[in-house]
Amino acid sequence: MYETYWAKMEDKGSIMIPGGQKLSYFSSADDLCWFMEPELSDAIRRLHSVVGNAVAEDKFIVVGTGSTQLLFAALYALTCTNSHLLDQPVPVVSAAPFYSCYPGIADLVRSGLYKWGGDAGKFDREEPFIEIVNSPCNPDGSIRGPVVPQNDSRKGKLIHDFAYFWPQYTPIGAPADHDIMLFTLSKCTGHAGSRIGWALVKDRSLAEKMVGFINIATIGVSKDAQLRAAKLMGALADQCGRENDFFKYGQRLLTDRWRRLREVVDKSEVFTVKDYESDYCSFFKDIFKPNPAFAWLSCDHISDTASFLQG
Amino acid sequence: MYETYWAKMEDKGSIMIPGGQKLSYFSSADDLCWFMEPELSDAIRRLHSVVGNAVAEDKFIVVGTGSTQLLFAALYALTCTNSHLLDQPVPVVSAAPFYSCYPGIADLVRSGLYKWGGDAGKFDREEPFIEIVNSPCNPDGSIRGPVVPQNDSRKGKLIHDFAYFWPQYTPIGAPADHDIMLFTLSKCTGHAGSRIGWALVKDRSLAEKMVGFINIATIGVSKDAQLRAAKLMGALADQCGRENDFFKYGQRLLTDRWRRLREVVDKSEVFTVKDYESDYCSFFKDIFKPNPAFAWLSCDHISDTASFLQG
Repeated sequence: MYETYWAKMEDKGSIMIPGGQKLSYFSSADDLCWFMEPELSDAIRRLHSVVGNAVAEDKFIVVGTGSTQLLFAALYALTCTNSHLLDQPVPVVSAAPFYSCYPGIADLVRSGLYKWGGDAGKFDREEPFIEIVNSPCNPDGSIRGPVVPQNDSRKGKLIHDFAYFWPQYTPIGAPADHDIMLFTLSKCTGHAGSRIGWALVKDRSLAEKMVGFINIATIGVSKDAQLRAAKLMGALADQCGRENDFFKYGQRLLTDRWRRLREVVDKSEVFTVKDYESDYCSFFKDIFKPNPAFAWLSCDHISDTASFLQG
Repeated sequence: MYETYWAKMEDKGSIMIPGGQKLSYFSSADDLCWFMEPELSDAIRRLHSVVGNAVAEDKFIVVGTGSTQLLFAALYALTCTNSHLLDQPVPVVSAAPFYSCYPGIADLVRSGLYKWGGDAGKFDREEPFIEIVNSPCNPDGSIRGPVVPQNDSRKGKLIHDFAYFWPQYTPIGAPADHDIMLFTLSKCTGHAGSRIGWALVKDRSLAEKMVGFINIATIGVSKDAQLRAAKLMGALADQCGRENDFFKYGQRLLTDRWRRLREVVDKSEVFTVKDYESDYCSFFKDIFKPNPAFAWLSCDHISDTASFLQG
């Protein structure tokens, strides 16, 4: 979806890496996340500050091979010192409809630390749990908060999956500020192929455990991909509020696709799409409706469907 | 160690990636490993053919975020359909002294599929197992084969970790040809920071399961890193037998470091280093002694140690 934008931006999003650079495993001896390139860490803090979608200043940043790896890292960090109830694996839940990959992630190697626990809306066991809060939600685009009620014996830890929490997808009134917030380059700049994600983490010890996980799982994260992500995110921050504002571009593109989708669906008498409430966005200083991601996912078929229905 | 070489090679090892390219998760719809860039797959097959260290032509290639991720993928692929003895986790063993990361990898999330089983030389349980054969061995540089004797009830699967199986480290008489062989860019070209590894896999179904693992763990492998790896490995293949032969350069460098290390150790009366047998190398068409990696790992301290001992 964003290829046209980046092609137009030419060298503002391009990188050159000489053969003799970035050979080492190490990026920054001073950073808790020793395999994170300082340019990337700077670009992440700057972009969150300019966009206003998350409080990054007081957080530890952990870079991952996509936000998927950071979800694994967070599950590990939250459970690796678990000693509850004879060391039973901790249930991982998320409100239905949930992102289709969560069950497979939680159960991939039948971990003794955690396991998939299903729909958070139905979770009523009196035991510790982890709830993944995905907002805006993939697949239905809704804005989400935690849903499992907590008490003395049912205590939960939250992971906020904020892949789509950017202003082209949804109006953002104020920066989010939670214990573990996951973001991914793929839904931010569109570069899914680079496999770069990042976590903003409040607690130092938890961030250290996440870094420890990634050290064992993949001994860090590709420097080449990190340098590219830093360049791309820096370009986004540079263009905010200017002629080539990426978020404005993305919002226009998605608004147009939603308009076309609704036109087709309104004629069909078969399909319907959910209506979303307008809300104020502090980045655009305007009120608008969300443009959730699932319209993006189905947009390639819109013209075919329209031809079929009109033909 | 190889930075000087690559700096001298200038643009032969450099890449430029425009902002509008390689945004997608997908690389090649035709390849079993759908997230592998065709350039990388070509470069891997070509380099193995030119160097003669492994038979790649008839294998499936799976790219990973370093060979570490491929070890996880192989453990998963070999055990995910395991149904032996009430689904007990399969022991993972390796002959001592083994690479220090193996136990942590096998036990990272307390998998129900596999678990660390210790020294392969002491494994005598009558049950299925997985043996990691690391050759040349990190840390002691020895050439290794499998050590666990197999019988009807003790059947094992082998994973060959060939990180250092390149002619600058050890004489290679003939190309290796095993079921699962793991390689890593970090010990081949020196670019550890890119996090690129690859597996050569005989069995299609096993390769598919490894791809399935990487799909869930990190949704593929950075395209940026893959493009860089393809360029670097292509440059190595181009230079073989020519003035800037990388393997000749590496062998000279390591031979010199071993000579200096042995000089220091011979004077010390405290330290000793193992002596290695000379062997024929089909790549260099010459007989020489191995230059194992642990000398490389300790080489930064040689001059300090020499000054201390001589001072």
